[in-house]
Amino acid sequence: MSALNDRVKTSSGFYVTKEAPIATDNPIPTPSVPAPDILRCAYMELVVTDLAASREFYVDVLGLTVTEEDENAIYLRSLEEFIHHNLVLRKGPVAAVAAFSYRVRTPEDLDRAVAFYTELGCRVERRAEGFTKGIGDSVRVEDPLGFPYEFFYDVEHVERLAWRYDLYTPGALVRLDHFNQVTPDVPRATKFMQDLGFRVTEDIQDEEGTVYAAWMRRKPTVHDTAMTGGNGPRMHHVAFSTHEKHNILAICDKLGALRLSDRIERGPGRHGVSNAFYLYLLDPDGHRVEIYTQDYYTGDPDNPVVTWDVHDNQRRDWWGNPVVPSWYTEASLVLDLDGNPREVITRTEDSELAVTIGADGFSYTREGDEEKGFKLGNTL
Amino acid sequence: MSALNDRVKTSSGFYVTKEAPIATDNPIPTPSVPAPDILRCAYMELVVTDLAASREFYVDVLGLTVTEEDENAIYLRSLEEFIHHNLVLRKGPVAAVAAFSYRVRTPEDLDRAVAFYTELGCRVERRAEGFTKGIGDSVRVEDPLGFPYEFFYDVEHVERLAWRYDLYTPGALVRLDHFNQVTPDVPRATKFMQDLGFRVTEDIQDEEGTVYAAWMRRKPTVHDTAMTGGNGPRMHHVAFSTHEKHNILAICDKLGALRLSDRIERGPGRHGVSNAFYLYLLDPDGHRVEIYTQDYYTGDPDNPVVTWDVHDNQRRDWWGNPVVPSWYTEASLVLDLDGNPREVITRTEDSELAVTIGADGFSYTREGDEEKGFKLGNTL
Amino acid sequence: MSALNDRVKTSSGFYVTKEAPIATDNPIPTPSVPAPDILRCAYMELVVTDLAASREFYVDVLGLTVTEEDENAIYLRSLEEFIHHNLVLRKGPVAAVAAFSYRVRTPEDLDRAVAFYTELGCRVERRAEGFTKGIGDSVRVEDPLGFPYEFFYDVEHVERLAWRYDLYTPGALVRLDHFNQVTPDVPRATKFMQDLGFRVTEDIQDEEGTVYAAWMRRKPTVHDTAMTGGNGPRMHHVAFSTHEKHNILAICDKLGALRLSDRIERGPGRHGVSNAFYLYLLDPDGHRVEIYTQDYYTGDPDNPVVTWDVHDNQRRDWWGNPVVPSWYTEASLVLDLDGNPREVITRTEDSELAVTIGADGFSYTREGDEEKGFKLGNTL
Amino acid sequence: MSALNDRVKTSSGFYVTKEAPIATDNPIPTPSVPAPDILRCAYMELVVTDLAASREFYVDVLGLTVTEEDENAIYLRSLEEFIHHNLVLRKGPVAAVAAFSYRVRTPEDLDRAVAFYTELGCRVERRAEGFTKGIGDSVRVEDPLGFPYEFFYDVEHVERLAWRYDLYTPGALVRLDHFNQVTPDVPRATKFMQDLGFRVTEDIQDEEGTVYAAWMRRKPTVHDTAMTGGNGPRMHHVAFSTHEKHNILAICDKLGALRLSDRIERGPGRHGVSNAFYLYLLDPDGHRVEIYTQDYYTGDPDNPVVTWDVHDNQRRDWWGNPVVPSWYTEASLVLDLDGNPREVITRTEDSELAVTIGADGFSYTREGDEEKGFKLGNTL
Repeated sequence: MSALNDRVKTSSGFYVTKEAPIATDNPIPTPSVPAPDILRCAYMELVVTDLAASREFYVDVLGLTVTEEDENAIYLRSLEEFIHHNLVLRKGPVAAVAAFSYRVRTPEDLDRAVAFYTELGCRVERRAEGFTKGIGDSVRVEDPLGFPYEFFYDVEHVERLAWRYDLYTPGALVRLDHFNQVTPDVPRATKFMQDLGFRVTEDIQDEEGTVYAAWMRRKPTVHDTAMTGGNGPRMHHVAFSTHEKHNILAICDKLGALRLSDRIERGPGRHGVSNAFYLYLLDPDGHRVEIYTQDYYTGDPDNPVVTWDVHDNQRRDWWGNPVVPSWYTEASLVLDLDGNPREVITRTEDSELAVTIGADGFSYTREGDEEKGFKLGNTL
Repeated sequence: MSALNDRVKTSSGFYVTKEAPIATDNPIPTPSVPAPDILRCAYMELVVTDLAASREFYVDVLGLTVTEEDENAIYLRSLEEFIHHNLVLRKGPVAAVAAFSYRVRTPEDLDRAVAFYTELGCRVERRAEGFTKGIGDSVRVEDPLGFPYEFFYDVEHVERLAWRYDLYTPGALVRLDHFNQVTPDVPRATKFMQDLGFRVTEDIQDEEGTVYAAWMRRKPTVHDTAMTGGNGPRMHHVAFSTHEKHNILAICDKLGALRLSDRIERGPGRHGVSNAFYLYLLDPDGHRVEIYTQDYYTGDPDNPVVTWDVHDNQRRDWWGNPVVPSWYTEASLVLDLDGNPREVITRTEDSELAVTIGADGFSYTREGDEEKGFKLGNTL
Repeated sequence: MSALNDRVKTSSGFYVTKEAPIATDNPIPTPSVPAPDILRCAYMELVVTDLAASREFYVDVLGLTVTEEDENAIYLRSLEEFIHHNLVLRKGPVAAVAAFSYRVRTPEDLDRAVAFYTELGCRVERRAEGFTKGIGDSVRVEDPLGFPYEFFYDVEHVERLAWRYDLYTPGALVRLDHFNQVTPDVPRATKFMQDLGFRVTEDIQDEEGTVYAAWMRRKPTVHDTAMTGGNGPRMHHVAFSTHEKHNILAICDKLGALRLSDRIERGPGRHGVSNAFYLYLLDPDGHRVEIYTQDYYTGDPDNPVVTWDVHDNQRRDWWGNPVVPSWYTEASLVLDLDGNPREVITRTEDSELAVTIGADGFSYTREGDEEKGFKLGNTL
Repeated sequence: MSALNDRVKTSSGFYVTKEAPIATDNPIPTPSVPAPDILRCAYMELVVTDLAASREFYVDVLGLTVTEEDENAIYLRSLEEFIHHNLVLRKGPVAAVAAFSYRVRTPEDLDRAVAFYTELGCRVERRAEGFTKGIGDSVRVEDPLGFPYEFFYDVEHVERLAWRYDLYTPGALVRLDHFNQVTPDVPRATKFMQDLGFRVTEDIQDEEGTVYAAWMRRKPTVHDTAMTGGNGPRMHHVAFSTHEKHNILAICDKLGALRLSDRIERGPGRHGVSNAFYLYLLDPDGHRVEIYTQDYYTGDPDNPVVTWDVHDNQRRDWWGNPVVPSWYTEASLVLDLDGNPREVITRTEDSELAVTIGADGFSYTREGDEEKGFKLGNTL
């Protein structure tokens, strides 16, 4: 469901509105208590089936820094990070996501998180000693959308290695940028995230108001997480930032040199949504990792919300390069608080893949262009 | 005055502390009322003596976008901006700064600004129609440090041109990043800015605790403004961001091609403080403009505060290249609310220029290195 | 036909040999007279059907410099060029290539060109006043492979604009790099070009010795021209260089901003062959233009010849991204000296497209890998 | 001595002529026999006093690849090289240059080298087994200018690591680009090098015709070597190339991180001469190494020769940044064939340092500008 009134078309082909043009007929109730004050996405806990293989990918290939490791888990951080980790690789029987973890502003925000999710009837677990090394008092929940979310304030500080250029590789990852979640009902998920204090920055819709994806933020970038329409709850990707575009190209070059080019799923390219430069990789378990750089500041409360037409062939790739189908269909399982995979619910609304490619779907390079200009041959 | 206890030396040679290691014996009283909630530095109003010459510099050379102009003023913005302007060039008899303007979170924050500065005994002026085109209800003050500060929420939205790559130049400026102010007593100024809600991210001190400069932020970058020790109140520079380092090099190349290389005052180089890549230019009136890219995220409330030793030759330039003396001594006048230049008060504490170069001063490349390693020949 | 004896496999997966591992059973006779001493590929004369549309593409979008123009033709050069032009756009009824033009070392080399091609029984035409503006005494031939080749020494010098950074765009084209020709029998064509003084730098073969393409040079880069196996004689592309990779990305970004992303046929990416970074565009007539940067020095007479396995999925794109089928099948007609399109002869040997993709073909990421690792989903 | 007739001033401020505008009253006789056909500068043999310290600099910091090493010498190459080495570090008592080594086109060119230098009365030594590992039959001479030159064709091939992106560092050096020699009489040296088959590409002169430096090439870049006016024979620097400018910045950043920023003598910056991006470093013995990227193609026989006015402040640095005095005055000793340092002869003509800076000298940003615009404060 959408509310596209008052939208303005820009000279770049997308629309802007003052408020997120998304509404839902099936909302999760808004809690009566305040949401925790979330600072930013802070780390993801990934379950991997072969710890050595994952270490090779994240440490030897991507160059993340090992803060700490043991036989069951590896704690990794990016070069500009000062908290203990941005990624936990934990050995387990089924590749999945154990936690999307956010840092909150104060210790008291953990009490707020408990109250917020408890009122929603969610399962909530709090551990004073934390769920992973390096993190203290933490709250984990099974959220109303089925995702395992974590909140923490207390964390071990480690050295920010930003100035340690002797440690940089050509593809150096400097920050965790965002998560991306797959969920069947994007408007419902978006409304819930707005209640949690997130603000929408961009979305993809069609003229009937079907919403295919929405991006939302706490820190003033395009997103801390996004909701991608599809069978879910699943994890679409976790994204790390580089300083410049050539750093992303260097990762591709290195994967070629290591004869691992089949780990490159999509890209590199320029996103329409977010205006960032991107690359999607698949880790040894098929977890998707985005490498990302140079989106824009979104911190003003009236930051214009951008809406892309799902038929605009430049929305996902500004250069009109095709999106590989697996990027739409594949994603990682998520775990409940007992460590069991959550059941995946099928999306019933239109799929972006179907409406943009193939028998019934279409895309255009120039709106209204009768020839479409869509690079079909590149896809089929 | 400083509080360097509990500082930890990093492997990069600087120190980190949990809280800003700055204290003052001569504080401006902390108001009893809350400070306005400042979002970010938003624009600077510069008085220029030759509007055509300034237009050539900022529009034709630097490529800022003209939102609006008339015979007396030009309103300019960067490519990723959606508010009316980031820079106002206003024709006037004396080159100076008329306003350091910040955007606040809500309209009600203007009431807070009035109360905050009124309690401090400052001159405060509020105009519902704004002081410049494109801006609505605004408050201007002569702050306790002598600077003309502005606060506003209401602003005309214009198109964010971030996706308009057909308009990009090789040196495209995408954001306003920060201001930099010259003031005689840095600890006193820092304490005042902390009361206004800023948080210190980095500073430069000596072992006696003399503070030579401090950087402080509202948005989660290294700074929205910095306090540089020197004769003041004066404006040291205003800084715009590029996406990548080559964009900054392209500006240098273009200035060479236009035979305007003498507009390059210092750089390009890598800062120690902020870890950003930088360039300093002088506009036709001698107003200093920094071009800046790639500092780091500072948005967590416990972001480690970095303290540099004033004798560390890599603090101002990570490559140890010398700082040209004019960069320390020259700065722009600032105006009071009647448009008259403020009197400049002489700094009485040690000057950074003096303690690092010349007869009594020294710098080192490696702390404790007897040979110093300072690139003296490059400076004297 | 191939001679792969004595080849050595490198740690990068391709092979090197001392001499070009290409032989032909059907050679064009080697002339008894010496070949002209060719310096470099110098310009291409393109016939375009809509001069204004082509001007918009090459001048407004790609930023080539207009040396001279009239109602029938436009003479364009790159920023580092000092001869009159690197590209002539001439208005005509059928989109085609009128000349692949090479500069020779001395005026006397024109006599050698006449003798060389005359002995081969080719049609040869010499004009003291040149065939285009800016060029003096020139020889044009219909070569034994059916291509219109030109040779000249005398040329008007124009200003090299390399230092004019005020004229640079973000995607600035600085040099003409190479041509690429489509011909049915690559070994036969290669042998002929070797007689003309070219040296092979790289090729693509299969284990039976079928040659799919070969790259050859006069100036010490990977190529001045390449022979691509396919129905020919046709022109595959003409390539211009940028300084850096971000310049190529900027061209993509600009095409997106202009809603011309469907002009991007393939890329950007990293070539296996040549190790260069690339992008392929289609001009308004469908002429293919490559943007290219950073291959390697090949000027030593014993420069190792690189042979790629046609089944190596990183040969055409080091990152394993798929080659769009049109890139293999589409090419521009070439003209005879009367301006009539040459008949296109069908290639009878295996096609690279067929042997690498689809029912019978295959590619691998890692040689010997049973799972292949080929990114099939991305292509089919 | 100069021949500046027929020079044309360009829009970039320098002059172009058809032939090198340099003449000498005191020429070395032109041999009656042909010069060897030189391909390119191939390697330098450096004597270093502390092999471990030099290894740390060239291998650990700069990332050159060790082809082979023993207790007395280290053989290093760049990533795109296929011959055994581009640099030999040989342990010895006095830091100096033992050989400027060039590769020739054929084995027979060694006979030509012997005849050429023998006729000039130079000391000539030929060794069938080579003077260093990896090189076969070689000729070393003490040339008429006092420099130890080597010529070879036979060389061991090693793997070109250009595609091995897993081995690249952020500051990867991909090619040896050129040498630079200090000699008292530049016109005399230039004339001799022209006899040896070099062609001048650029020079620096004053209006009286004093020549301060000249650049000359065999391969089609701006130079294989340059003659810098000063006390000589000495070696000014040896230069390696990177692919892009950010690679050079990364070397600076790494030196800062290693607290070795005092190894940065000058730069980074954009040269006027050559239009390349540059950085000058000093190795542990004070041997100067340039890191260099992106000059232009010079391979045509009528490539325009560029002459810069010595008073043009953008000739050495296009951005007008000052040249540190040590860059003009310091250089490495060169050895005779017995391994003894050659005597250094004082230059008697004007020094570039003196005529451009200080009491009698001057520079301008804009020719004819009365205010000069020279960034004096930056230097004195």
